[in-house]
Amino acid sequence: MLVRPRNPLNIGAAARAMANFGFDDLVVVAPFDPVWREARSAVGAGAVLKAARMTDHLPEAIGDCSFVVGTTTGSRRNLDRGPVPLTELTSAPRKLPPRTHAAVLFGPEKTGLLNDHLSYCRLVVRIPTTEGCPSMNLGQAVAVCCYELARAAEFPRSAATGRVHSSPPAQVQSLDHLIDRAARVLDRAGYFKPKGRPAQLLKLRRLVLGLGLSNHDARVLGGVLAQIEWKIKAG
Amino acid sequence: MLVRPRNPLNIGAAARAMANFGFDDLVVVAPFDPVWREARSAVGAGAVLKAARMTDHLPEAIGDCSFVVGTTTGSRRNLDRGPVPLTELTSAPRKLPPRTHAAVLFGPEKTGLLNDHLSYCRLVVRIPTTEGCPSMNLGQAVAVCCYELARAAEFPRSAATGRVHSSPPAQVQSLDHLIDRAARVLDRAGYFKPKGRPAQLLKLRRLVLGLGLSNHDARVLGGVLAQIEWKIKAG
Repeated sequence: MLVRPRNPLNIGAAARAMANFGFDDLVVVAPFDPVWREARSAVGAGAVLKAARMTDHLPEAIGDCSFVVGTTTGSRRNLDRGPVPLTELTSAPRKLPPRTHAAVLFGPEKTGLLNDHLSYCRLVVRIPTTEGCPSMNLGQAVAVCCYELARAAEFPRSAATGRVHSSPPAQVQSLDHLIDRAARVLDRAGYFKPKGRPAQLLKLRRLVLGLGLSNHDARVLGGVLAQIEWKIKAG
Repeated sequence: MLVRPRNPLNIGAAARAMANFGFDDLVVVAPFDPVWREARSAVGAGAVLKAARMTDHLPEAIGDCSFVVGTTTGSRRNLDRGPVPLTELTSAPRKLPPRTHAAVLFGPEKTGLLNDHLSYCRLVVRIPTTEGCPSMNLGQAVAVCCYELARAAEFPRSAATGRVHSSPPAQVQSLDHLIDRAARVLDRAGYFKPKGRPAQLLKLRRLVLGLGLSNHDARVLGGVLAQIEWKIKAG
């Protein structure tokens, strides 16, 4: 919900961010510009803008919600409770029964939400911006909040570890073939020092095994080496 | 880094989002509009915009980086590796030694990063937008990524997993030399298909940059290639 937004471009930007992250119920409360809906609609935001509701007063807008979250930069003086970092917001909705109708409020561009608005909020979240430049652009703030909510909803996922392969990791035996082939090429190329071969080969194997090659990587490199081997033999 | 941005307002918005989350090194690569810097600077973004660097070409911009991350909506057809969800990005930089110079690339508004740009990226991340409306506004995409990076930095989590470098990661420019050398060898070896060279070279670059080579690795492989090059020339 955008409370008293001034710039129709920001309304369009908010709608686009919502569409990007799968939210569709935009409410615009008492916008300054009566023609906000006709404003050039941002790419992809058309449907969200078209379906947006408008109300004159905040209580009307949130009447049917059971959980209202306010957003702030945390710089308001009269805030009577510490805002929760946005990064922790995502633990809050989980406490709610499913299908709870919730709303997130964003204030006017210049002032942010006023204390009156905040008084309707069960929770106030702060986007963790720097002290030097705390105030976010409205459309960007909406994007960050939508992202965080979508992220949390999507989350329970296996923990990411290291490099992500679209192709499964190569088995050691195919890597060994790769290294054998490389060794043959290097023998022909005179790479190894007379007595150093075993140690150099060991280094090479360590290097190759350490790379975490995928099956696909190993195939491509095998092709490269085969071609070089052929060339050296032919030459 | 913004690659070929068209709209100066988006550059200003990106600068503001960076300032909001404590990032200050903006690089603008070959912007369409030469007066981008003079464009009405977004609130709070003045310092970041003023200090922004501009380059004509991407390799120049990332030459001194050791970790380059590309961003995508995941809808590009030719992407030969699965992009990592942004929510998982934050496990990747932790593999790097502290003070690694990293960059995040954002593509032009209309097309996003092209395959040539992506081939310089060690990792491609996808902002988890919906299928129905995948494409984000540039300024909002930057805001979401800055938020996610700041969020992760604020929450140092469990120990890093994955490959541990004993030697610092190689910079893009030394990897580019390595790839040039490999291309010379492969030209001589007749590896490339008549019309396929650009695409094959792109694949090779992606593969090599994806390996996370250390400085030491790059030196060893450079030596290997030099020897092979010499042999093929001599043969």
